[in-house]
Amino acid sequence: MTEKIKQKLIELGRDVADQILKNKNPAIDIPVRALSNVVFNKKEQTLELGNKSSERSFFNVGHVKKFLQTIEVAKISKELLDVQKHASLRDVFYMAKRTIPNSKINLVDEQTESDDAIEDLELVTGHSRELLNINANKMGSVAGKVVIEDKGDEIDWSKMGSGGWSIPSNVEEIKFKKVQAKYVIYMEKAAVWERLHEDKFWDKQNCIIMSSQGQTTRGIRRLLQRLSQEHNLPIYVLCDGDIWGAYIYSVLKYGSINLAHMSENMTIKTAKFLGITMDDIEKYGLKKHLITLTENDYKRIDQLQNYEWFKDNKHWQRQFKLMLSLKGKVEIQSLSSRGITFISEKYLPEKIKNQDWIE
Amino acid sequence: MTEKIKQKLIELGRDVADQILKNKNPAIDIPVRALSNVVFNKKEQTLELGNKSSERSFFNVGHVKKFLQTIEVAKISKELLDVQKHASLRDVFYMAKRTIPNSKINLVDEQTESDDAIEDLELVTGHSRELLNINANKMGSVAGKVVIEDKGDEIDWSKMGSGGWSIPSNVEEIKFKKVQAKYVIYMEKAAVWERLHEDKFWDKQNCIIMSSQGQTTRGIRRLLQRLSQEHNLPIYVLCDGDIWGAYIYSVLKYGSINLAHMSENMTIKTAKFLGITMDDIEKYGLKKHLITLTENDYKRIDQLQNYEWFKDNKHWQRQFKLMLSLKGKVEIQSLSSRGITFISEKYLPEKIKNQDWIE
Repeated sequence: MTEKIKQKLIELGRDVADQILKNKNPAIDIPVRALSNVVFNKKEQTLELGNKSSERSFFNVGHVKKFLQTIEVAKISKELLDVQKHASLRDVFYMAKRTIPNSKINLVDEQTESDDAIEDLELVTGHSRELLNINANKMGSVAGKVVIEDKGDEIDWSKMGSGGWSIPSNVEEIKFKKVQAKYVIYMEKAAVWERLHEDKFWDKQNCIIMSSQGQTTRGIRRLLQRLSQEHNLPIYVLCDGDIWGAYIYSVLKYGSINLAHMSENMTIKTAKFLGITMDDIEKYGLKKHLITLTENDYKRIDQLQNYEWFKDNKHWQRQFKLMLSLKGKVEIQSLSSRGITFISEKYLPEKIKNQDWIE
Repeated sequence: MTEKIKQKLIELGRDVADQILKNKNPAIDIPVRALSNVVFNKKEQTLELGNKSSERSFFNVGHVKKFLQTIEVAKISKELLDVQKHASLRDVFYMAKRTIPNSKINLVDEQTESDDAIEDLELVTGHSRELLNINANKMGSVAGKVVIEDKGDEIDWSKMGSGGWSIPSNVEEIKFKKVQAKYVIYMEKAAVWERLHEDKFWDKQNCIIMSSQGQTTRGIRRLLQRLSQEHNLPIYVLCDGDIWGAYIYSVLKYGSINLAHMSENMTIKTAKFLGITMDDIEKYGLKKHLITLTENDYKRIDQLQNYEWFKDNKHWQRQFKLMLSLKGKVEIQSLSSRGITFISEKYLPEKIKNQDWIE
């Protein structure tokens, strides 16, 4: 795989060099990564890039910097692949931040510039940043009945004590040796993960529990996708009962606007939203713990209601309406008001048994 | 240990019950947790609580709610210890958030209230929240030449693939089975951890690498303290070269104002600040990557300069002055501009060999 990617980068460089040797204005063709070029593929049920692309050329005052930045990150990625090392986005920024000889101009001044160039490089090469050996931040833990091999170590996710295995930023090279688990619960909160882990939920239910803290990293998305695709495991998403929880689910399932070009490697088509649903509030006696919606919540509900992938989805439209009529949201942890193990002994087993989720 | 703590909680309850049976106004004596009662113990070099305490009684309109909240979290902690379960701060909030019978008053309305009550309970019982089975969020990863036992699992920190072991929120019950490592590097950034991990830094240098992302959790502070106290390992702190890095170090070494009552269980007296120092900027050619100080940076420098524990420290005062004269700060990752493995092959080994740190 690495050889294939290096070849792509070499081709890119050779193509530019050829143009120069032919006295042409060197240029790269890059698909447009903007909302105007993001489409929702109804058949595939994912966000994708459209067909618009734009040429970036050297002898163009408006293009030259971006052109050079793209070439520079391609060079950095090639070097990383050569020495088999990975760099973080921030590392790449500092590696690219050099002054152009005989000038006072830096190739990049802000990380957003190198980040953008890296996303362009993903498009040009057709390979994800991770495969270009560039990582984002690591985050999150996992436990369950799975044995993997990673960097020569055999790691049993069921023998990780109270901490679990720490999920790396890049999971491309992990090999699944033994997958006994029957499904995965992904949750947005580390504290809920510790609750389920202490209750040996994954052992009793024969599943995998996985969490981040806050945003879902690309490492986690890929790990979930691989478990879903390579091992056919259902992926259940457990979030707060609010519009932000719905959005976490939305990104996992349909992709996100700024990573539309990566949908194929990122989205989990079969993901199901397990909870907290607006119906759970009544069903599990959480009404007392409703938190009043903020201005920001209302704004976001309005946006999600109108997303193409939610527009024709009766179940989600109903949820959004319930949010508005309840004027409130609830947190996963409000289940603790029913008892500390209520979530692992009653709520989750019941929801899964009754297939009480939203798709 | 658990029995001892339960006993403390039972005593607390019995004491209150006794007062009621004697027709007294039931009260609890609680040390004052406010800046006015925080002192810097020069001999011990830690922040501590002073001697001021205040009585909180039931028949006092200003006290009654806090009194009840303290009793309530004591009850919750006792229940958790009884069933050998742990709850998060948020869980405890929801467990305590119940309506007082025949009223419309909730025992707690905001998490800050139950958090406060828990800190009071730490003081009253003399035991940390973790030992009361109440956890904060988990965060961070560790790798290195150490074997631990946790929840019946034997975990080898040197065989955790690219992810490392995920640090739990509560490390009180971990047993160290084999500690071959000679020192610990704690870093504030997960991306730097992945850099060092990929370079097998801990293997080549025979050490432990540990990181959080952002704030240092109590789990990490306790883990570092235990490695320092129980295994005599030096703890080196690796942060950005700015006032916020200095503050991370300050909290690890001297304690923090709001956890002054927990200093004994939290501070690492021998911690050393490895970098990035202001001197490193010149020494390692990072001047180009200076980021201009913000208004907020200047304010914080002024505050730290005047903290009692930094006031008489020549080395730190010099650093603060250098920050002001350079008018800038640098990030750890700026070292990547010198080459992707510069940090693990040159910067860190050289700094440690030359004992080039600040205390």
